[in-house]
Amino acid sequence: MLEIVNEHACFGGVQRFYRHESREIGLPMRFSVFIPSQAQQGPVPALFYLAGLTCTEETFMIKAGAQRVAAELGLMLITPDTSPRGANVDGESDSWDFGVGAGFYLDATEAKWARHYRMYSYIHELRELVEKTLPVDAGRIGIFGHSMGGHGALTMALKRPDVFRSVSAFAPIAAPSQCPWGQKAFSGYLGQDTTAWAQYDATLLMAGLKTPFPAGILIDQGLGDKFLAEQLHPEAFEAACQTAAQPLTLRRHADYDHGYYFIQTFVEDHLRFHAKNLAA
Amino acid sequence: MLEIVNEHACFGGVQRFYRHESREIGLPMRFSVFIPSQAQQGPVPALFYLAGLTCTEETFMIKAGAQRVAAELGLMLITPDTSPRGANVDGESDSWDFGVGAGFYLDATEAKWARHYRMYSYIHELRELVEKTLPVDAGRIGIFGHSMGGHGALTMALKRPDVFRSVSAFAPIAAPSQCPWGQKAFSGYLGQDTTAWAQYDATLLMAGLKTPFPAGILIDQGLGDKFLAEQLHPEAFEAACQTAAQPLTLRRHADYDHGYYFIQTFVEDHLRFHAKNLAA
Repeated sequence: MLEIVNEHACFGGVQRFYRHESREIGLPMRFSVFIPSQAQQGPVPALFYLAGLTCTEETFMIKAGAQRVAAELGLMLITPDTSPRGANVDGESDSWDFGVGAGFYLDATEAKWARHYRMYSYIHELRELVEKTLPVDAGRIGIFGHSMGGHGALTMALKRPDVFRSVSAFAPIAAPSQCPWGQKAFSGYLGQDTTAWAQYDATLLMAGLKTPFPAGILIDQGLGDKFLAEQLHPEAFEAACQTAAQPLTLRRHADYDHGYYFIQTFVEDHLRFHAKNLAA
Repeated sequence: MLEIVNEHACFGGVQRFYRHESREIGLPMRFSVFIPSQAQQGPVPALFYLAGLTCTEETFMIKAGAQRVAAELGLMLITPDTSPRGANVDGESDSWDFGVGAGFYLDATEAKWARHYRMYSYIHELRELVEKTLPVDAGRIGIFGHSMGGHGALTMALKRPDVFRSVSAFAPIAAPSQCPWGQKAFSGYLGQDTTAWAQYDATLLMAGLKTPFPAGILIDQGLGDKFLAEQLHPEAFEAACQTAAQPLTLRRHADYDHGYYFIQTFVEDHLRFHAKNLAA
């Protein structure tokens, strides 16, 4: 069921890359896991990290420097890929911001994409798979992500706060219905009817929030991020949180850009935030 | 003279990628630098990191997670590329362990390679360049590296202890005259006369050491490293250190392999080792 592609000792734990046949995607998928040494004593809390456009299941694990802190805190880290691979949908590799590497963590409904591009359901399939096969405490799961994956983390947590008890993001696409990346993805995967888009828009989901995340939501945003003005719209999400009485810590950092030098700088704060939220 | 290719805020400092025309290589070369915030107040100690086969000036900076500790300690990190690029020597890209990405930090003497493959002299050219143009304290420079770059760090420090006051390595090719990687590189770049090889062999250089590094040498080696038995020979270097009365801390770690998950686990210890040695 789960095939280990390779594994590496890391900070006293183990960094593994897995391959499995996905029911939702209908194709083989890869993901990676950092398992801290604490998991030898029993189930540990787990954090899903959703990556951004063009990334894979490897990107966060090689670039973010997160394992050191996860090893200290006893957190499992789980990173899926960012889209199906090998679906061979016509045109799926024509753009870097749509199709391969750009699944947007939604279930496509447009006929051309609907068979394989089901990343929303896939993340839940993967969660259930690791809950069954790895030493994960299913009651203590958090989620975070970057850019497209920040969008994914926020929307997945807002749709299933019963499952994802803690959520944070780096430079998320916070209001995808209002930006070119989101409009391209949503119209392509979901069609022109914008009412179908709302279920995958964190800012719109926040407006319908029934029970706020009591520990708040943490977002880090660099002010030197070249995508900030056109694509990210954290201010729209911030306003929606205020309206919904959802506590939000939105930290704006002078100079930092959109990449992993920014992420590695602040990843420790995110892991400590989640560990605290998942401690109980 | 120095062209900034790109730069990124990182841990309160700046991660820069530079391009320059190299006199020794006779071609443009790239390197990267992490400049900690302490450099705004004046010159800081600097650590050169030499990377392994197939790596570039980017590898260590994205994979090792070293900037966090360098920012804390006020250390500049400098990583050159691993060979000339664009020399267009016939056959230079035929092997992953010789030619492009495999300069072995030596000055080639075989006619075919001698014009451009001068990485030994290039590292000194680069050092003089950054001493002149960046806020580096020229009296406080250390060097470390991985695999081929561990060989490079040990040999460069042993040849110029007046310049490199502190040295460490991850899984170095510690006795290149005795292993296939080293024999291929040395015979290709230096010819068949093995007497010419000794000046680039850390184990042989150690036998001629006049003044030991008083603070010792730090080496980390994973015991799950698939290259250990055939290519690395830390035990030969260890014996040479003992004969030369050179203090050596050689740490053998169960399970760890040859890659950056190993390096990121122990890089903090190396930075603290160098910072202490360069403190005075």
